[in-house]
Amino acid sequence: ANSLFSGLGTTIFSVMSHLAQEYGAINLGQGFPEGLEPADVIAAAARSLAAGPHQYPPMMGLPALRQALAAHEKRFYDLDIDWQTEVMVTSGATEALADALFGLIEPGDEVVLIEPLYDSYLPIIRRAGGIPRLVRLEPPRWSLPREALAAAFSPRTKLILVNSPMNPCAKVFSADEMAFIGDLAIAHDAYIVCDEVYEHLVFDGQSHRPLMAQPGLRERCVRIGSAGKTFSLTNWKVGYVIAAPEVLDPIAKTHQYITFTTPIPLQQAVAEGLAKDDAYFAGLAHDMAARRDRLGAGLRRIGFEVLDCAGTYFLTADFRPLGFAGDDLAFCRHITCEAGVTAVPVSAFYQPGQGGIPTSFARFCFAKRDDALDEAVARLERHF
Amino acid sequence: ANSLFSGLGTTIFSVMSHLAQEYGAINLGQGFPEGLEPADVIAAAARSLAAGPHQYPPMMGLPALRQALAAHEKRFYDLDIDWQTEVMVTSGATEALADALFGLIEPGDEVVLIEPLYDSYLPIIRRAGGIPRLVRLEPPRWSLPREALAAAFSPRTKLILVNSPMNPCAKVFSADEMAFIGDLAIAHDAYIVCDEVYEHLVFDGQSHRPLMAQPGLRERCVRIGSAGKTFSLTNWKVGYVIAAPEVLDPIAKTHQYITFTTPIPLQQAVAEGLAKDDAYFAGLAHDMAARRDRLGAGLRRIGFEVLDCAGTYFLTADFRPLGFAGDDLAFCRHITCEAGVTAVPVSAFYQPGQGGIPTSFARFCFAKRDDALDEAVARLERHF
Ligand SMILES: CSCCC(=O)C(=O)O
Ligand SMILES: CSCCC(=O)C(=O)O
Repeated sequence: ANSLFSGLGTTIFSVMSHLAQEYGAINLGQGFPEGLEPADVIAAAARSLAAGPHQYPPMMGLPALRQALAAHEKRFYDLDIDWQTEVMVTSGATEALADALFGLIEPGDEVVLIEPLYDSYLPIIRRAGGIPRLVRLEPPRWSLPREALAAAFSPRTKLILVNSPMNPCAKVFSADEMAFIGDLAIAHDAYIVCDEVYEHLVFDGQSHRPLMAQPGLRERCVRIGSAGKTFSLTNWKVGYVIAAPEVLDPIAKTHQYITFTTPIPLQQAVAEGLAKDDAYFAGLAHDMAARRDRLGAGLRRIGFEVLDCAGTYFLTADFRPLGFAGDDLAFCRHITCEAGVTAVPVSAFYQPGQGGIPTSFARFCFAKRDDALDEAVARLERHF
Repeated sequence: ANSLFSGLGTTIFSVMSHLAQEYGAINLGQGFPEGLEPADVIAAAARSLAAGPHQYPPMMGLPALRQALAAHEKRFYDLDIDWQTEVMVTSGATEALADALFGLIEPGDEVVLIEPLYDSYLPIIRRAGGIPRLVRLEPPRWSLPREALAAAFSPRTKLILVNSPMNPCAKVFSADEMAFIGDLAIAHDAYIVCDEVYEHLVFDGQSHRPLMAQPGLRERCVRIGSAGKTFSLTNWKVGYVIAAPEVLDPIAKTHQYITFTTPIPLQQAVAEGLAKDDAYFAGLAHDMAARRDRLGAGLRRIGFEVLDCAGTYFLTADFRPLGFAGDDLAFCRHITCEAGVTAVPVSAFYQPGQGGIPTSFARFCFAKRDDALDEAVARLERHF
């Protein structure tokens, strides 16, 4: 088999979810929401499923959804996007990322990445023949090390991958940081692949600003979003890519040969969902922030040092104040098996085998029902 | 952008479907069925959609579907498959193929392919760093050139990709041909990736026999199937991979990072569909053979030389007896624009830029309603 993939482990999300199930733990590990599924969007999928058609939709996506996405870009980001040449629907944002990376990277190209990073990035980049150049953010402040970032670029840089709002650190890149990244990309004529799946999960009156909407970056950005995250339906696997026509072209070719199309009923329902009023989008962020605060208060009461959280589903907490001796993987296993609460170790978001990886932070997903959050806190409180 | 993908054209299926739409032609080009969708399978998806859950299913697929697939392998092929280690659900057979090729091929590996071939094979193999070694079947008999096939293998052969029942030539490999292929794979310690999406579309009292079920091949075969084809719901994009645990492992890693999961309602409905009685599966093949005969008789009456068709959705016809001067692409465009019937040129299934490609054959999809088939024949009859 292929040495590029056969050495790889199962994703930490699956590992921890299995362990949670085995121990009957409350699963605050894998990032998925509970209790937020919009009934009208589900009903729209049911209608489309009943009505058909049942055969291949267009490879780029249903026109209705592509038009709705172009309207979404205008409404939220004032971006003028041509739905026919700049919008593609994918079978989830994970596929969109794979399409972008396989479509843009040529063997030998360098790719700049910012740790901590989502676990599909490195395997796909390596499989595409790319050479990763990693820059590291560190808790508790996760600030961008500008010199190191500038040094990671070279004449061979093909692209930088930026995840904002950022999983797991719940960081939203500042306008200043985005301008810095944008200037580097321009100077090195690099693409910016923007994993923005948490675009509608930004809190405290802030809102997401895509790199693509920054001056001068429109043509070099590949913006990736996730209907699963925006509508709290993570099993639907409807993602999308927004990019200038020449940039989208090789990404679409990859999609054509990787999944070709995405189920019609789910595309149709997402198209209808995107027409929801502002109250829906604001309500989602508001509701999620309340969950963040509820879990955060509980964790602080127990003694965790809880880091700032400007967006995403995730709170990161330093468990050293609790006096736990082991590393973060040991901690997450420990609380799963002994306290009945599952979290994900933050070290899993760093390239393995390197020194200096933070190992005393756990990531908790707060996108859960209040009673689950309360019970999780109660269980941890009883244990510590 | 990436030179491996940016030179590629849009798939011939999309091109011809667009042209069909533009000219209001009856689309016998792209391979999708009409009028065969099982209402009970659709109803099962609706029930699952209403009931939830709505978040990520397990990465390998719903246990119910994986169990149903293992039972399917036993029932139809007498294969003993362990659902927990040898079955994976994918977002369509196209993804399953990409997973298998990215998962097994290392840069520099040779891959043996048999032309005519499905249009995703070459781009994905090249993107994975594989070196294609092509062997060519030729109309009207499509017989396997055994010497050329043996010569295509080398010590660097990682795998051979075999599509049976074979698109577009509607060939079902004979037991003897399969044994020949199997012996070569064993002699060169190569995997056999088996694209068997038309497994339930074999006609005239024959039935599909997977390479995996041949003596000695169980451990080196990767068997790929498509619920979209088996249940005539091509937009659902539910595929599957059956392989020995060590072979499945790198393929599953690829899936993990390419789509991760597949929508639950469609998985659940396919699980229920696979429990259908023998009458369903026999009826599907019987019904499809009747459509083949209906279209075939009409094309022969018009003067086409219609080739044998043992399986799939497709009839290949030689149009030279009609006196058309141009090549097959010209012919397919001509009948789309002038007669209002769309077919796909068979030359599109051969690697471009090589000599000796057959250029006087068109592929017609017969998986359509009787009235559409009759009207297509009537239109062609009026024209020629
Ligand atoms: C694809 S499963 C993991 C979901 C997720 O985005 C996360 O937990 O970080
Ligand atoms: C993936 S679209 C093409 C469908 C098909 O398998 C074919 O027409 O050969």
